[in-house]
Amino acid sequence: MSASFGENIITTIFGESHGKGIGVVIDGLPAGEKIDMDELNLFLSRRAPGSNAYTTQRKEADSPTFLSGIVDGNIVGSPVCAIIENTNQRSGDYKNLRDVPRPSHADYVAHIKYHGEMDMRGSGPFSGRITAPLCVAGGIALQILKKRGVEIFAHISNLGGIQDVKIDYVKPDIEALNLAKTREITVVSEEAEAKMKELLQEIRREEDSIGAEIECIATGLPIGLGKPNYSSFESLLSRVIFGVPGIRGLSFGSGFDAIKMKGSEHNDAYQIDENNIISTSTNHSGGIIGGISNGMPLVFKVAAKPTASIGKKQKSFSISTKKAEILEVKGRHDPCIALRMVPVIEAVCALVILDLWEAEYGFRKN
Amino acid sequence: MSASFGENIITTIFGESHGKGIGVVIDGLPAGEKIDMDELNLFLSRRAPGSNAYTTQRKEADSPTFLSGIVDGNIVGSPVCAIIENTNQRSGDYKNLRDVPRPSHADYVAHIKYHGEMDMRGSGPFSGRITAPLCVAGGIALQILKKRGVEIFAHISNLGGIQDVKIDYVKPDIEALNLAKTREITVVSEEAEAKMKELLQEIRREEDSIGAEIECIATGLPIGLGKPNYSSFESLLSRVIFGVPGIRGLSFGSGFDAIKMKGSEHNDAYQIDENNIISTSTNHSGGIIGGISNGMPLVFKVAAKPTASIGKKQKSFSISTKKAEILEVKGRHDPCIALRMVPVIEAVCALVILDLWEAEYGFRKN
Amino acid sequence: MSASFGENIITTIFGESHGKGIGVVIDGLPAGEKIDMDELNLFLSRRAPGSNAYTTQRKEADSPTFLSGIVDGNIVGSPVCAIIENTNQRSGDYKNLRDVPRPSHADYVAHIKYHGEMDMRGSGPFSGRITAPLCVAGGIALQILKKRGVEIFAHISNLGGIQDVKIDYVKPDIEALNLAKTREITVVSEEAEAKMKELLQEIRREEDSIGAEIECIATGLPIGLGKPNYSSFESLLSRVIFGVPGIRGLSFGSGFDAIKMKGSEHNDAYQIDENNIISTSTNHSGGIIGGISNGMPLVFKVAAKPTASIGKKQKSFSISTKKAEILEVKGRHDPCIALRMVPVIEAVCALVILDLWEAEYGFRKN
Amino acid sequence: MSASFGENIITTIFGESHGKGIGVVIDGLPAGEKIDMDELNLFLSRRAPGSNAYTTQRKEADSPTFLSGIVDGNIVGSPVCAIIENTNQRSGDYKNLRDVPRPSHADYVAHIKYHGEMDMRGSGPFSGRITAPLCVAGGIALQILKKRGVEIFAHISNLGGIQDVKIDYVKPDIEALNLAKTREITVVSEEAEAKMKELLQEIRREEDSIGAEIECIATGLPIGLGKPNYSSFESLLSRVIFGVPGIRGLSFGSGFDAIKMKGSEHNDAYQIDENNIISTSTNHSGGIIGGISNGMPLVFKVAAKPTASIGKKQKSFSISTKKAEILEVKGRHDPCIALRMVPVIEAVCALVILDLWEAEYGFRKN
Repeated sequence: MSASFGENIITTIFGESHGKGIGVVIDGLPAGEKIDMDELNLFLSRRAPGSNAYTTQRKEADSPTFLSGIVDGNIVGSPVCAIIENTNQRSGDYKNLRDVPRPSHADYVAHIKYHGEMDMRGSGPFSGRITAPLCVAGGIALQILKKRGVEIFAHISNLGGIQDVKIDYVKPDIEALNLAKTREITVVSEEAEAKMKELLQEIRREEDSIGAEIECIATGLPIGLGKPNYSSFESLLSRVIFGVPGIRGLSFGSGFDAIKMKGSEHNDAYQIDENNIISTSTNHSGGIIGGISNGMPLVFKVAAKPTASIGKKQKSFSISTKKAEILEVKGRHDPCIALRMVPVIEAVCALVILDLWEAEYGFRKN
Repeated sequence: MSASFGENIITTIFGESHGKGIGVVIDGLPAGEKIDMDELNLFLSRRAPGSNAYTTQRKEADSPTFLSGIVDGNIVGSPVCAIIENTNQRSGDYKNLRDVPRPSHADYVAHIKYHGEMDMRGSGPFSGRITAPLCVAGGIALQILKKRGVEIFAHISNLGGIQDVKIDYVKPDIEALNLAKTREITVVSEEAEAKMKELLQEIRREEDSIGAEIECIATGLPIGLGKPNYSSFESLLSRVIFGVPGIRGLSFGSGFDAIKMKGSEHNDAYQIDENNIISTSTNHSGGIIGGISNGMPLVFKVAAKPTASIGKKQKSFSISTKKAEILEVKGRHDPCIALRMVPVIEAVCALVILDLWEAEYGFRKN
Repeated sequence: MSASFGENIITTIFGESHGKGIGVVIDGLPAGEKIDMDELNLFLSRRAPGSNAYTTQRKEADSPTFLSGIVDGNIVGSPVCAIIENTNQRSGDYKNLRDVPRPSHADYVAHIKYHGEMDMRGSGPFSGRITAPLCVAGGIALQILKKRGVEIFAHISNLGGIQDVKIDYVKPDIEALNLAKTREITVVSEEAEAKMKELLQEIRREEDSIGAEIECIATGLPIGLGKPNYSSFESLLSRVIFGVPGIRGLSFGSGFDAIKMKGSEHNDAYQIDENNIISTSTNHSGGIIGGISNGMPLVFKVAAKPTASIGKKQKSFSISTKKAEILEVKGRHDPCIALRMVPVIEAVCALVILDLWEAEYGFRKN
Repeated sequence: MSASFGENIITTIFGESHGKGIGVVIDGLPAGEKIDMDELNLFLSRRAPGSNAYTTQRKEADSPTFLSGIVDGNIVGSPVCAIIENTNQRSGDYKNLRDVPRPSHADYVAHIKYHGEMDMRGSGPFSGRITAPLCVAGGIALQILKKRGVEIFAHISNLGGIQDVKIDYVKPDIEALNLAKTREITVVSEEAEAKMKELLQEIRREEDSIGAEIECIATGLPIGLGKPNYSSFESLLSRVIFGVPGIRGLSFGSGFDAIKMKGSEHNDAYQIDENNIISTSTNHSGGIIGGISNGMPLVFKVAAKPTASIGKKQKSFSISTKKAEILEVKGRHDPCIALRMVPVIEAVCALVILDLWEAEYGFRKN
């Protein structure tokens, strides 16, 4: 199931960087939902390259064509297939382009695993480009969830050490998080954005790259999504998150800070208000207890590594000659892949929530 | 698939804390492997409670009975089932025991999701007790992998802020890691162990608990295990890791440190030695590139939250009366669940590696 | 997934004929259902050997012990595990018992596939004995479905050419089908039963065996269970049916008769009654259209081969010497495995329907 | 998993009859296989409509475009996606076209299940048209298997009572089966073909349709493909076979004839030749024992119902008015859907065998 995830809503992605096209099949979406294509394209544009000065300057036409499952904007109940044509296909021998593998790229492991057969031009199926169809699927899920009262906000919480403002995990500032989505860098704090931009310009000048952390918050979840153990909310989400190229870590709620915390600090005390609404006064659990949503905001963080493709000279070797080689990777690369990964994380989050929702409440709507 | 994981080797666990028994079914293990039951029981004893002063003083007889799949110590090829009897079963009404849900326990979400039907005595299926059968399965996988040259070492890398020594991710000190397994607390540094013990005694005195970080290293992996995207090494491992109760975070290689690193620091340069053996001079990737093992040691870290059951008074509410309540959880609890989780992480790691191995090289051995 | 089936309710069986025990894990059963254990044991007794003169005279204690998931007769929501101890375990070398493979038994293929490691005593995991835990799972599903208005009736529709009465597929005679369950051979017609008994006595005298056909009818299904293509009702049912040892064929509705029928005969015309209830005037579709239940009775037929273990001399060979050998299989065998397979087919049918039901209407009951 | 099947090679189909396009994603194909596109198109032409006088006279351009996974005719190891454009898309309101549901079509069940949202023009996702992408996937599998010595032959074994010649299940006449593929109707016997054509002309004149049986034989299989129980060869094959629209029955080897056979007739005696090659002297098992291939030819039969769309008047009702209605289905329909289903059955068979092969022998080829 390398290309697919989901239990009741199965998402399957396909495509490599320099093939004819990439795309996605989503099986199990609830029939009758209306999808706003403008809103979807707006969402996709947040991931698209070349949208501002801080991403790669390559231009890609990432608008999806729906082959099936959506008619006149309606989800009809059959598998939805969307494809995006690649405009950068080239002919020529694809097998011998990567004799000197790029450090921290999949070039060499792919060479061994697929015994030299994989089309690794533009990183092939390992390319971040395959997150475009993931965003198509996730963009659809986001629209469906919004009607059910669920909203999802990811932002750059840390870039190269520069911290965005701390989000209140109990009552996140929705307005501020929405505003973040309109900035060139998805951060809540204008100041942090300015500092990040400065750092990114420096990084670009050095032909280097930088890592970052993305934090994601989802509000409006009902109690009860997820199951104990291997279909826990964290389990299902993590499988997909770690399927996104470049992710090095994932944590929920207090995350790695929990290793220094006492139980008396970490436990989320219950509170009950005048309307008998039950909540917790803190949210170190990040909205999940025992693998199951508890009605508090879902909160998780993702660590994205620095872009592996950098202009600086690096040590490598030649697969054919078995001699050491110095490699210079040319081309226009993202100085920080996390910037364009923000909507990808929202997309993944939406797909997992919708999948769990359908398992819990069923496919049938009447 | 809440109770199961794996693609070619399917592990299914069952049982709740106060039922008659817990156990595991493992389908797809390679026929003909010989299992050393003493070695398996030794491994299980590392997880068992009451083994030293720093775990819960409850005693549980965790020795498994094999119902199927293993005959005279040989794996025969049919599903292996092992069961462990619970000795703490009690009769009486199980439904009304948890009117005041424990903070950061699954009591309340389980009440809603299973509309009051779940047997939550001893935390039911959310109990850490279900990691015992997971260790039975993993203990078997560890023995099979060892014959293939793979060794797995988890240790407490941080407990409440006290750090164990830093492990060399390129050439880990196997001797030191093996020594750690013999200590009361699985740490490499004797000094760190002493400090951790001191902290744990203080924590216990306060009737509190503390979080910790577990680091896991696996050596001897071939290049090529895992697939791109949703069957990536990280994806499959994370799904199972987050199925272990109490895990808040997971990171690979440089993990969350990557958010502050430049590509030029983070990329693992290739080196080739006189025997044409290819390796990388650093291992920030933690042995995985593009979701696929690259032949370097696998390295990941896990954040475990502090035990939720603490003696200190906590704020909660009554499900039946909807009134606020103060809760005192009695009983003998682990001051730090991570201590007994160390072999669980090794077990999970072994099961995932063996599953990937069988997918890559096939079931048939002749 | 060799040991498991189901999409929302996952059933996993384990055990071999001469191991310590066999059993089943069922994950995803709806919490809060009350199971009547006497009714369950009564159902299991229909499959148990030695119940009458027409089955093997071996006696097996097939009463299940529930380790988890059921407390005080209530399904609590965690995985249900039931085990049945084997009373016929023997020690001794299990590997060299089958040097001369029995024709039409799995002895030789298992020898090759598991390179001589499989425990094939009593046919190992290929034994019909593993249908006992399947009946435990199915017996539970039958009780849950009955409360939802679904009833399932399998009967021997043909044994060695002797036909039971034809069932009306539009309005099956429930009373007659219920009566069939009380007979020694599950047939509607007393006359047919008498003839079958006569044939079976003759078959037994000849130390031979005979095949039979089982027909299964399920009433009370809602419209809409199943999905197009690979989760079609037929697809999910067939996967499990063909997992039962000895099944050679499966057909729905008019089945293989359809190959001689015209569309104008085969199509089920719609009729609408005074209460606006829609039905079809015939039921050649067997209650399924496009993979989805249409509200008419589900009808399918299963062909069971004659028991492969017969007393008569048969040609085989020695695996070790590669010489031809004449084999005489001793022991008390069922003259017709189909007789005891009747409740197994009901069990499988119930599990598949319940799985589809939960997918359609969701796990959450409030 | 309604749109997908397979355990190691996952095939996912999508598309509805009147959408923009249909297609398939195949994940897990072995890297390095060379696909002959002319051979593939030749295979597809056997399924395509309008190829001769006995199929529908609609013309469809069924040539696939490969978006990914195949470069210069080579399978590279990433998911293969092939799409086929629909040329019969029309605009206009798709929701209200089927107020009077066609008998034995999915119109009404789809209306209920998808609450009126499904695009049922041309039968939507229930259309036989979705077998076109299945043939693309299967055509690839057939080429890979051929290099491994496996050949697959399906033929019309019975059409409306007219029988093709009996195939020798032990040593099938490959030449005759290959010749059958070149006829207008895929039958071995020229005489049978003549009679079938006559019957089909009569059926067409009556604006009716007729059912048929397809028999499929696969040669060259190794011993050991498949597993006991729910990943048995029959289980995995049946799930996919019953996912093909219009299938009413499936049987292996002696199939439903087994219900009249004695064990002494049905058991396949072993024979060993001068080269120590082991085989069976009969093949009632159809090449599968205990769910596992035994090295003899795989043999199974499929019952296809008569085309549900017929010109003759039929009784139905109006969904909106709840009044009885007489329906006349217009258009050019296949008088016998089985004719074009022959390559579909070969395709399915090839995909299942290849999937089992990869599970048994592994993905890695070096």
